[in-house]
Amino acid sequence: MCQLLGMNCNTPTDIVFSFTGFALRGGLTDEHVDGWGIAFFEGAGVRHLVDYQAAVHSPLAELIKTHPIKSKNVIAHIRKATQGKIALENCHPFVRECWGINWVFAHIGNLNDFIPELNGNYLPIGNTDSERAFCYILQELRLRFGVVAPTQSELTRALQQLCGEIARFGTFNIMLSNGSALFVHCSTELHYLVRQFPFNTAQLSDQDVSIDFADVTTPQDRVAVIATQPLTTNETWHAMHAGEFMVFVDGAALNHTS
Amino acid sequence: MCQLLGMNCNTPTDIVFSFTGFALRGGLTDEHVDGWGIAFFEGAGVRHLVDYQAAVHSPLAELIKTHPIKSKNVIAHIRKATQGKIALENCHPFVRECWGINWVFAHIGNLNDFIPELNGNYLPIGNTDSERAFCYILQELRLRFGVVAPTQSELTRALQQLCGEIARFGTFNIMLSNGSALFVHCSTELHYLVRQFPFNTAQLSDQDVSIDFADVTTPQDRVAVIATQPLTTNETWHAMHAGEFMVFVDGAALNHTS
Repeated sequence: MCQLLGMNCNTPTDIVFSFTGFALRGGLTDEHVDGWGIAFFEGAGVRHLVDYQAAVHSPLAELIKTHPIKSKNVIAHIRKATQGKIALENCHPFVRECWGINWVFAHIGNLNDFIPELNGNYLPIGNTDSERAFCYILQELRLRFGVVAPTQSELTRALQQLCGEIARFGTFNIMLSNGSALFVHCSTELHYLVRQFPFNTAQLSDQDVSIDFADVTTPQDRVAVIATQPLTTNETWHAMHAGEFMVFVDGAALNHTS
Repeated sequence: MCQLLGMNCNTPTDIVFSFTGFALRGGLTDEHVDGWGIAFFEGAGVRHLVDYQAAVHSPLAELIKTHPIKSKNVIAHIRKATQGKIALENCHPFVRECWGINWVFAHIGNLNDFIPELNGNYLPIGNTDSERAFCYILQELRLRFGVVAPTQSELTRALQQLCGEIARFGTFNIMLSNGSALFVHCSTELHYLVRQFPFNTAQLSDQDVSIDFADVTTPQDRVAVIATQPLTTNETWHAMHAGEFMVFVDGAALNHTS
């Protein structure tokens, strides 16, 4: 299966530690060899790196580890193809503009017979169920709210409803970000934790690497990390349950409804 | 001033040779230090790399030279900021989807008081005149042709007309690609050449580097390269004239009207 990784912070933070363990699952400690991708928000801009080589063999993945990029919102994805051929246009995350804002989306799971009517405002470039779902979500947001972005709470309600609707077609573990919030829907498997003061040492599950976050943070920093499976062995990861929808802002879970 | 580089080919080709000279203009042999970017079509997908470090100091630029990416359509841009702060969202090329197709756009020059009415289908994320022009072009294409992509000749006529309209607001040297064609409008300065059989040795202007294309091509290969200023010293570059609009497909100039 595929793997998702998301990070939402109150201060720009590099994702090297989490990405190091995560990238190993792309072909070394797990079987996800059909491409990978990562998108970093930097201000209003998005740095979007995708590849259809396994992450463990990708020079781009190596670059991310050697040249840390600091971001408040990151979404990464490692792909084991279920629908759609192995091609760049089918690599997650996907990026589109809505309301003059970048939106980043990644999905794991499979949707069956999800063929929504698309009015042309957002059309898939590739042929995955995932990109189709992303286009449908943005189309529906535009239909509901017109040309002006809604408030965060209006947006949250709309996204939660849309995720629930799409999840009826199959498995819909997703992460979606507009650069300020990270929206997460769980169908089957997602875990999260919030790192904040006092910071401790964390030990990666996939490699003998640890980091003492107290050395690289200030007491004000707060970082939420969300991943398919826990990435560290000595921290408490919370399992999301089926149908749960969460919103992370400034490194904290805003609401917790299902 | 900024620098533009485009490549359109009949077979996927790496741009390392041209990019090597071009990247040197980003802070070493010229003064373009406010960021750079490049977009490669790979099938329907786009690999989009942007940075606000000078290209000569950028690890991403180094990666492009050490890990050649083969593409039939490439657009690259080195930026000296005129409008818009130095930020990722203001780095060219810009990428948007229209008709389920990726579109890539880069511009050099300055538009004065170009504030078109935007209906919300494509809204700028940053604050450059360039991205505003790109959004306007895609909006107008959608308004004219609806949800189905027009033929190449319809598209060419529409783009030529739109470029002429926008160019009345200032300097509009642009490159635009949908992955099959490379559309080019010249206001002040652009040069192009077509490399085809029999291939010869080319010598970069900006560095003591040469390549014998006969060693790395087949007789069927054809590559059009378009750049602000000629990149090589021993090939014949054709200067485009003010108001000229060209379309390159499969490495050849399709039409030649102004």
